[in-house]
Amino acid sequence: MMEARPLPVPDPDASPYGGDSWRLTADAAALAFEQTPPLLSLGNGFIGLRGPGGRDEPTLYLNGVYEEQPIPYHEAAHGYARSSDTRLATADPTRLRILVDGRPLRAWDEAELDMAAGRLRLSASLGAVRVTLDRLVAMDRDAVFTRIRAEGPVGTPLSVVPHILPPPGPEAPDADAPYDPRVGPALARSPWQALLTADHHRVDRLPVSGWQVAVCVSGGGAIDIGAAGIAQIDVVAGIAAARDASPDTLIATARAVTAIDFDTACTAQCAWFDAIWRVVGIDLPDTVGGTRAMRHALFQLIQAAGRDGRTSLAAKGQTGEGYEGHVFWDADSYALPVLALVAPDIARAMLRWRIAGLDDARANARAMGQTRGALYPWRTIGGRECSSFFPAGSAQYHINADIAHALRLYVATTGDTAIFDEGGAEMLAETARIWLQIGWHDPARGDAFVINRVTGPDEYSAIVDNNLYTNLMAAEHLRFAATVAGAHLSADEVAAMRRAADAMAVPFDAERNIPAQDDRFFALEPWPFAATLPDKYPLLIHYHPLTIYRHRVAKQADAVLAAAILPRRFDRDTRTRMLDVYEAVTVHDSTLSAAPFAMLAASVGDADRALAYWRRSVMTDLSNLFANSGHGLHMAALAGAWSALVYGFAGMTVLDGLGFAPIAMPALGGYAFGILWHGSALKVTVSDTRVRYTLDSGGPVAFRHSDEALTIACGETIERAL
Amino acid sequence: MMEARPLPVPDPDASPYGGDSWRLTADAAALAFEQTPPLLSLGNGFIGLRGPGGRDEPTLYLNGVYEEQPIPYHEAAHGYARSSDTRLATADPTRLRILVDGRPLRAWDEAELDMAAGRLRLSASLGAVRVTLDRLVAMDRDAVFTRIRAEGPVGTPLSVVPHILPPPGPEAPDADAPYDPRVGPALARSPWQALLTADHHRVDRLPVSGWQVAVCVSGGGAIDIGAAGIAQIDVVAGIAAARDASPDTLIATARAVTAIDFDTACTAQCAWFDAIWRVVGIDLPDTVGGTRAMRHALFQLIQAAGRDGRTSLAAKGQTGEGYEGHVFWDADSYALPVLALVAPDIARAMLRWRIAGLDDARANARAMGQTRGALYPWRTIGGRECSSFFPAGSAQYHINADIAHALRLYVATTGDTAIFDEGGAEMLAETARIWLQIGWHDPARGDAFVINRVTGPDEYSAIVDNNLYTNLMAAEHLRFAATVAGAHLSADEVAAMRRAADAMAVPFDAERNIPAQDDRFFALEPWPFAATLPDKYPLLIHYHPLTIYRHRVAKQADAVLAAAILPRRFDRDTRTRMLDVYEAVTVHDSTLSAAPFAMLAASVGDADRALAYWRRSVMTDLSNLFANSGHGLHMAALAGAWSALVYGFAGMTVLDGLGFAPIAMPALGGYAFGILWHGSALKVTVSDTRVRYTLDSGGPVAFRHSDEALTIACGETIERAL
Repeated sequence: MMEARPLPVPDPDASPYGGDSWRLTADAAALAFEQTPPLLSLGNGFIGLRGPGGRDEPTLYLNGVYEEQPIPYHEAAHGYARSSDTRLATADPTRLRILVDGRPLRAWDEAELDMAAGRLRLSASLGAVRVTLDRLVAMDRDAVFTRIRAEGPVGTPLSVVPHILPPPGPEAPDADAPYDPRVGPALARSPWQALLTADHHRVDRLPVSGWQVAVCVSGGGAIDIGAAGIAQIDVVAGIAAARDASPDTLIATARAVTAIDFDTACTAQCAWFDAIWRVVGIDLPDTVGGTRAMRHALFQLIQAAGRDGRTSLAAKGQTGEGYEGHVFWDADSYALPVLALVAPDIARAMLRWRIAGLDDARANARAMGQTRGALYPWRTIGGRECSSFFPAGSAQYHINADIAHALRLYVATTGDTAIFDEGGAEMLAETARIWLQIGWHDPARGDAFVINRVTGPDEYSAIVDNNLYTNLMAAEHLRFAATVAGAHLSADEVAAMRRAADAMAVPFDAERNIPAQDDRFFALEPWPFAATLPDKYPLLIHYHPLTIYRHRVAKQADAVLAAAILPRRFDRDTRTRMLDVYEAVTVHDSTLSAAPFAMLAASVGDADRALAYWRRSVMTDLSNLFANSGHGLHMAALAGAWSALVYGFAGMTVLDGLGFAPIAMPALGGYAFGILWHGSALKVTVSDTRVRYTLDSGGPVAFRHSDEALTIACGETIERAL
Repeated sequence: MMEARPLPVPDPDASPYGGDSWRLTADAAALAFEQTPPLLSLGNGFIGLRGPGGRDEPTLYLNGVYEEQPIPYHEAAHGYARSSDTRLATADPTRLRILVDGRPLRAWDEAELDMAAGRLRLSASLGAVRVTLDRLVAMDRDAVFTRIRAEGPVGTPLSVVPHILPPPGPEAPDADAPYDPRVGPALARSPWQALLTADHHRVDRLPVSGWQVAVCVSGGGAIDIGAAGIAQIDVVAGIAAARDASPDTLIATARAVTAIDFDTACTAQCAWFDAIWRVVGIDLPDTVGGTRAMRHALFQLIQAAGRDGRTSLAAKGQTGEGYEGHVFWDADSYALPVLALVAPDIARAMLRWRIAGLDDARANARAMGQTRGALYPWRTIGGRECSSFFPAGSAQYHINADIAHALRLYVATTGDTAIFDEGGAEMLAETARIWLQIGWHDPARGDAFVINRVTGPDEYSAIVDNNLYTNLMAAEHLRFAATVAGAHLSADEVAAMRRAADAMAVPFDAERNIPAQDDRFFALEPWPFAATLPDKYPLLIHYHPLTIYRHRVAKQADAVLAAAILPRRFDRDTRTRMLDVYEAVTVHDSTLSAAPFAMLAASVGDADRALAYWRRSVMTDLSNLFANSGHGLHMAALAGAWSALVYGFAGMTVLDGLGFAPIAMPALGGYAFGILWHGSALKVTVSDTRVRYTLDSGGPVAFRHSDEALTIACGETIERAL
C-alpha cells in the first residue's frame, strides 16, 4: 500500500473486547472506554438504548422522534434550510435502582452482548452476592424487558426500584472547544415539555415538531434470596411516540406492549434473530474476533434501521447523538445494499421512507432552483433539508442517484417490482428530472453532458465540475428511470434522459491514464503529506476548508467508490491504477472510506490490501479508530464491512443478475456468508482454493461463477475452484 | 450595449431632487423617499448623522464604534470567524423638540444640503411662521451645531428643547422575510448598557467590545420673535467615544468640543470644504444635475471616510446600518483611488488603519492555514475577520492585492514614501507572502503560477481556479513587494515573488479571444436571461447560490475591473472584446459594477456606453437604483462615479507617472476636474475637441497627454486637441 496517510490495521483478534464468535464481552477496563456504551447498544429499529457507561448521560433515543430548531445564519441566502431536525434523547423508563442487602449497586464489572439471542447481560459482585441483569429490546414490540438476578447467601434481600429519568436538559456548550462538525450543535435549552408525569409513566412533548413520547415502567420489587440461592425480579418498560394522540391514548399504547413476561419475550427475541442469522451465515474460520466483529456489525445495523416505513437509518443509528440523528446518503448507498440481501423487509421499509419524502424533496428542489422534479435532502429526519452549509451539503446532488441505485439494487435482489407502483417509479422519475436541469450538453465538449458545481462524496473537495461518482451514478439513474419509470415521464424526457446518460462526461486524467475525480482534481497542488504531522488528522479539525479544497487530497473514497459500485465501467488495469493513484491522495478521514477501497482492492485480486481495508472498516468502532465512537456507532462502516466481504472478497454482482468471482482470503482461513436472492437463501463458502454454493431454501437460483452460468436448486451444493 | 440585463439609465437632470450644482434639495414628496435620509447625511469621518426621515429610526452612527457578537453556526469548521463586529446606532444628542406658539413642529417640508458650506437646512411652515434649521457636523471637531430660526409675526414664542435619544433597542427580526444579505442580521436584544444618564448628557457602553460613547447637548431655550421678525436659538451637541476612559473623562471630552458658537463653526466648516472643492473642481457644463450628483458623491465620500488612522470607510459609510457597518475591499479599491487624488490625508489615514490591522491579519492568515504572512479580513470593523460564509468572504484573497494596490497608488500620486517606513513596507511584504502559499507553479501548465480555489470580485462565482482579477492583481502585488519591501523579505522570497509574478497564469478563452474570468467561467451553462423575468433580479434574492454558481453569469465587473484598473495589460481590441463579452453576461446586481464598465468603455473610446455606466454609478443612490439606499449610501458607487470620470473619460493613469488620454463627452458639454499630484493642484478641462491643463498651485508636474510628455508649471496652462 502506498498510502497518503499510513493508518493502523487493527487485528480483530486483539481487540479490547472478548467473547466467542456470538458474544461480545467487556470487562471492567473495557467498560470504561468511550465506545463501549454504543457498542453494547440494544435496539429494535425504533428504540435505541445505549449500553452501560457514564451514569447520567442520555441513553435512550427513538428513531424519527425529533425537534425542529431554527438554523441561525449570520449571512444567509435564498433557499437556505431554515430549520433542522434534531433527535433528542427522551425520557428513559429503563433506569433501575438495585439494592442488595440494602446496599446500592453502583457499577457493573462485566458485560456480555449475546448477538444470537439479541440480549445484553451485565454482571457485578456486591459482597458475596453476584448480580446479573439480562435485558432485551424486543424486536416485535416497543418494550424493554429486564431481569435482575442475585445469587448468594440465602436470605439476602434484593430490591429493584424502577424509575423514569426525565428527558435530559441542554448540554453546556463549550465556546472555546475546537469545532467538530461530526458532533451536533449543543442546544441552549431543553425543548421538552412535560405533559404527564407520575412515578411509573410520563408523557413529554416537543413543541415545534409536535412529537410526543410516552414511557411507562412496571415490575420491580423486593425479595430475599431463596433456598436455591437465587432471587429474581423482572421489570418491563413500554415506549410509544406519535405526533397526534392524546397523552392518555399514548400511555395506553406504551402500556399495552408490556403485557408479556420476560421469558416469552426472550423466546420471541431468539426466534427473530435466529431467522436473521440463518440467512446471514457469516463465518471466518481462522478469526473468532473477525467473525464476532462482522456479526456485531450486522447486529447493530439491523437493530438501528427503521422498519416501519416512516423512519430510516441515521448515520449513527440510535446509538448516540452524533450528526443530530440525521439520515444521510449512506443509508441508501452503504446500508441498503447489505439489508436488501439479508433483511429485504428492512430495505423495503427504508425505501418506503424515501418515497414518503417525495413532496419534501420536491420542495427542496424548488428551493435549490429546479423548477421540476425532486431533490432529496442531504440530511434530514422528518424529510426536509437540514443542511446549513450547502457546499458540503445540498450541493451533493448525488443523493438522488444514490436513492435510485438503492431502489434498483433492491428490486434486482428481491424481484419486488411492486414497489415501483407504490411510488417507487414516480420517485425515480422525479429525481431523474433534476439531472436534466443541473447538467447540460456542452457544445465546447462535443455536446457531452456535463454537471458543474456539485460536491461529490469526497468532502475535501466542494463545488467541483463533473465529479466522476456523481456523473456515473447520474447516468445509471437516468437510464434506469428511462427504462422503468416511463409512465411518469414524457417521451421527450425519456429521450433526453437516454441522450444525457449516453453523452455523460467522464473526466479523465491522461497523465495517470485513469478517470479523474473531477475536471480539476489533479490540477490541484498536492497536499504536503510529508510535512503533515500525525496529530493534524483528521484534516477537517485542523485546517480551514479552503486550505483543504485547494489541495489534491481526498477525505474518502470517491472515484474509488464509483469503481467499487460499478466495477464493470472500468477494466481491471484501470481499476488497479485507480486504486494506486487514489490511495496515494486519500487520508480516510471518513469512516465511509475503507470499505470501497477494500472492494476495489478485492476486485483486482489484491487480497492483502482488501483485508487491511476490511479490518479498518469492521473495527471502526470496536477499536474506536476515529476517536469519536462515543457519539455513536458508524453505521456506514459497519455495513461497509459486509459489503467489503461479500461484494468485495466474493466479487458479488447483482444489478445484471447474480454473480460471484471470489478471491481467496487465506489470512481469514476462508470465509462464508449467506444472502437472500428473490426469497431463496444461498450460502457461499470460500476456502483458499475452492468455493461452495449451497441453496438452503427457496426456488432455484441462476447465477454466474466468474464467467460460468449456473443454476442451483434447493438443497443442492455446487463447488468450483477459485 | 448588448446587455445581459438591460437596465435603466437615469438622467441626473431628471432626478426627484432639485437645487443648483452646489445644493441638493428635497421637497415634501422627496423627503418621503427611503433614500432621502442617507442622501441628506452629514458627517465628519467619525460622526454620521442621517437626514430627516422616519421620526424614530436611528440616525446617529459613529465610525469604528461597534459591538462584538458571536457568530452562530449550525455546522462550523476549523478557522471560521467566531464573532462579528456590528456597528450600532448610538445615543443621539441631536434630537430637538421645536415649539412655535406652543405648537410642536412635526415635520419638515423642505431640505437643502449645501455641499459648498457642508451644511443642511431644513424648513417648515407652522401657521404664519417659517421655521428653518441649519445644521452642520463640524469637520474639525466631533460636534453637531444647529441653529433654529423662526420668521413670522413679532412676539410669536419659539421654544427649542434639546434632548438625548437613548441608544435604540433591538430590531424585531422578521423570520418569514426573504433573506437579504445586504442587510445586517437583526440583534435579538440591545447590548447597550447605560453608565451615566442625565437630561443633557449620557454615557453608554458596549460590554463585549468595551466601546463607550459619551454625548452631551447644550443650548436651546425659549424666545419670542423680535422686532426684525426673527427669533433664533442655537443648540450644540458633543460626542466622544473611547474604549478606555472613565465616563466622566469621556463626558468632559464631549463637552470640550462644544465650546465654540454656531457662526464660528460655520466659518471653519466653509473653509474646510472650500479647500476640498478647490482641488476637486468638478464641472460638467451641460448638466447641473450631473455636476450636483458628482459633487454630492464626493461630499458624502469625504464625510464618511475615517481620518484618524483608527477607522476607515464602511461600505455605506455612517449613512445607514447596511452590512453591519463593515469595511470591505471597496475602501481600498474604489474609495482610495479617489481620495488619494483629492484628499490624500484621508487616503493616508485609511492606509494607516490597514497597517494597524497587521497583527489581526496575521492571525487571520493562521486561521486560514497560511503559516506565514498576513491575510486581511474580508469584512471587519475592529480588524478581525467577521465573514461567516467563506466562499463569498474569506475566499476573496484579492483583498491583499487590493490593499497593496491602494498603497502603491497612494505613493505614486503623493510621493509619500515615508509610509513605507511607518509599516507600509512590512504590510506589503507580509501580505505578499500569502500568494506564495496559496498558489504554486503547476508543472502541468508549464510551471505557470496558478492560484486555485479562490473567489474573485464577482460573487456569482465562488471557489474558482485562477480568477483573472486575483491573478493579475497578485502579480502586481508580488512585483511591488519585491521592489519596495525587500528589507522585510529574504532574498529567496524576493526571487520567488518575481518568479511567481512573471509566471502568473492568465486564463484565456480561445473561442472569444479574451482573458477569461477564471479557468472555467466560459465552460458554464449560459444563464437563461430570456427566461428570467425582471422581478427575478437581483438574482441573489431569488436563486440559491448554487444555481447562480452553476451558470455563466456575473454579478459585477470582475475581468472588466481588472482591465479597467490595469488597462495596459490588454490592447485596445482585447479590451473592446472584453467589454462586449462580459457585458453580455453581467447583471450588475452589485453597485460596484457600473463604474469599471464605464472606465473600460471610455478606455476604448465608447463615450455613449461610458456615459450610461457613469450615470448608473453616480445616480445609484439619488435614483435608489438598487431599492436599498435607505440602508445607507453605496460608497463604492459614489467613488466609482469619480473614477469613471477621471480614470475613465479623462483616461488618467498614475502608476507609471501621471498621464491623461481624454475622450470627448459631448452629452455633458465637456467635463472638468482637479487632482492633487505630489501636492500640486492640477485642473483638467475637456471640451468636445480640446483639453486644457492648468496648474493652480505647487511645483511643476510632469505628465503625458496621450503619448506626448509634458511638464506644467504653477500658473501655466497647456492646451491640446483631443
